[in-house]
Amino acid sequence: MSVNEQMYAYGASKSSIREIAAYGNARKAEIGADKVFDFSLGNPSIPAPDAVRKSIERLATMPATKLHSYTPANGLPEVRRTLADSLCRRYAKECEPVYGTDPIARPDDLYLTAGAAASIVISLHALTNPGDEVIVITPYFPEYRVWIETAGCVCVEVPADPATFEVDHAALESAITPRTAAVIINTPNNPVGVVYSRLNLAGTAAVLEKRSHEFGHPIYLLSDEPYRELAYGAEVPWVPAVYPATVVCYSYSKSLSLPGERIGWVLVPPTNPEHDRIVPAIAGAGRALGFVCAPALFQRVIADCVDVPSDLAAYERNREALTDGLSELGYEFIQPQGAFYLWVKALEPDANAFFERCRALELLPVPSDSFGCTGWVRVGYCVSHETIVGSMGAWKRLAEQYR
Amino acid sequence: MSVNEQMYAYGASKSSIREIAAYGNARKAEIGADKVFDFSLGNPSIPAPDAVRKSIERLATMPATKLHSYTPANGLPEVRRTLADSLCRRYAKECEPVYGTDPIARPDDLYLTAGAAASIVISLHALTNPGDEVIVITPYFPEYRVWIETAGCVCVEVPADPATFEVDHAALESAITPRTAAVIINTPNNPVGVVYSRLNLAGTAAVLEKRSHEFGHPIYLLSDEPYRELAYGAEVPWVPAVYPATVVCYSYSKSLSLPGERIGWVLVPPTNPEHDRIVPAIAGAGRALGFVCAPALFQRVIADCVDVPSDLAAYERNREALTDGLSELGYEFIQPQGAFYLWVKALEPDANAFFERCRALELLPVPSDSFGCTGWVRVGYCVSHETIVGSMGAWKRLAEQYR
Repeated sequence: MSVNEQMYAYGASKSSIREIAAYGNARKAEIGADKVFDFSLGNPSIPAPDAVRKSIERLATMPATKLHSYTPANGLPEVRRTLADSLCRRYAKECEPVYGTDPIARPDDLYLTAGAAASIVISLHALTNPGDEVIVITPYFPEYRVWIETAGCVCVEVPADPATFEVDHAALESAITPRTAAVIINTPNNPVGVVYSRLNLAGTAAVLEKRSHEFGHPIYLLSDEPYRELAYGAEVPWVPAVYPATVVCYSYSKSLSLPGERIGWVLVPPTNPEHDRIVPAIAGAGRALGFVCAPALFQRVIADCVDVPSDLAAYERNREALTDGLSELGYEFIQPQGAFYLWVKALEPDANAFFERCRALELLPVPSDSFGCTGWVRVGYCVSHETIVGSMGAWKRLAEQYR
Repeated sequence: MSVNEQMYAYGASKSSIREIAAYGNARKAEIGADKVFDFSLGNPSIPAPDAVRKSIERLATMPATKLHSYTPANGLPEVRRTLADSLCRRYAKECEPVYGTDPIARPDDLYLTAGAAASIVISLHALTNPGDEVIVITPYFPEYRVWIETAGCVCVEVPADPATFEVDHAALESAITPRTAAVIINTPNNPVGVVYSRLNLAGTAAVLEKRSHEFGHPIYLLSDEPYRELAYGAEVPWVPAVYPATVVCYSYSKSLSLPGERIGWVLVPPTNPEHDRIVPAIAGAGRALGFVCAPALFQRVIADCVDVPSDLAAYERNREALTDGLSELGYEFIQPQGAFYLWVKALEPDANAFFERCRALELLPVPSDSFGCTGWVRVGYCVSHETIVGSMGAWKRLAEQYR
């Protein structure tokens, strides 16, 4: 009898992404910030829009007891109304074949949370039972495994299509068992930067429908969408329009550059066949996990900023400089359609060995082993433009080493 | 296979406190707000100090990428430094017999959280293993049971001393088994309003030390202290000075009237014999439960306001009016030393039946059954002074009904 060994292990073993970032900071202090090219973290480099500051300043003058008091557990009704209306404005037309003219999101379908991590953890606790299996598509955000295991479930890795890094439907179908409760997808994707096409989503839906029917219970699609607004021209389909048994997890960390403020939501779409049981289960999981309510001030901020567009210009400029530069040097990579990551093929099979060569040249991407597959590195381009431009000499020398 | 039944149950069954509050709101809409005397909720009625507004306005002008970015998982180092220094200033002298001149809280002993609920849930997941027992002192805040069960543990109720409502040491000792991982105490106490004396805490420590020794592992004391600053003259001892194997859970919800903003901390005191294993386990539990980091803006606000005193005048005035009034009418109650609750003896053995008589007179306290015992009601005086004064006629008629 002692402290919980599993929690101790989660706390004692840092994520390798964080370790690389810590090394980068130490190295910058040692040799100068402009000489280290740290592409490890997913911390937005563009500031929150000015509308956020204005909203905070306006809200600060509200009566304090009203502003800072407990909100209902699922969030302020007027905020949920504003968010639901915005989703209807943006996606109702796309959903018409499925929903007809019914609203695609109503205030009570939304549960405001302390960010996407909270959304996913709450959803996993609500949708699964201990011993269930939850499928992730490799490569995947490594915290998924921690959260799945904490809900008492088994994390089942299904490799993405090796050519497109979208879902491999045959691999998905064969991985589903009678214990499969849910599949997590993340589009636009971290770490690869692809956006799943409508066609690929439809194929996933067909597999899930078939297997749900076969096993006599819905297999839920957990759609993790913090990068929804960060797409460079590609269409990001509204997932519930393709598969009804979806639960959408959203966050304002990337779209409004508010990662530290912890604000997001879970949406249980009206068409989800278990809607009326999932909504209370989400509320129950939020209560059981100690969330109480999403931060009150920022509930109001996101309502104020609901139609403020994400400022993608800086990321687009970085993306172009990075892909143009690496392309010219002969690197292979997956053409990034969204998020702010470039997925670059390592120049040798062992991504960790490749990373060591990167590091020797002060380049700090993240080896793909952290995301559950071999042979690639993730290059986060949510950095200053100078970092991209300044790194090109090192990328060149690296390529030369492998000639 | 379906949604999680336990989470569904937690979400579908509202807490009776919330149900009474909802009834109160509906009733106010029906007959007028000044005719309903709702004493059900623990939502602070005094506004956050003006220093909070000034801090928010100052922070809003900071560079947004810095202000709103992810913080380290345990919180901003400079904030933890400020908080640790403040604790040292306030409690080091009291701790000298135990700590000598060593600091009683260092920055790395603190883990900032999204409020006391998060602090307790994270601590329970860190300190216990499934199947363990966690003791609560009856009457107790009902969410403790939900959080204990969610960590996979058994909630063991130990009645408080029926005369003083402090810990009954004989009852505590006989309830401890080899499976007891922790005891939760809450002082100043919700729902009773007592503050545990140094003597009573020392008795609890003696029992825990004896049993820890007997069973060969430390039994942790989880000290839930959101009401620490709300004491009316009574000393609130620093618990780790009395019992080393303590973990302190704190929140700014009541002291700075910020319940909606979700900001607090966990402290693992340097003297805790398992300190070096608990600190990573707390970090691991925060990670596993999806907390990521405490809300960034309010981390800075609490550092700015670290020495701003809580404004107790309004609560003291309410407390006096309520105790004077009820005393004159012949009600029995526990003299409140802290928090903002009065624990009043029901005028018949069945507190629920008594509550129905209250309700008929538009008085809305909370029957003690919600807190795990019979025969009392909790009267929250974090309401307007007019509500206290206006309710006296109804309390009078109620007493007359029982003559």
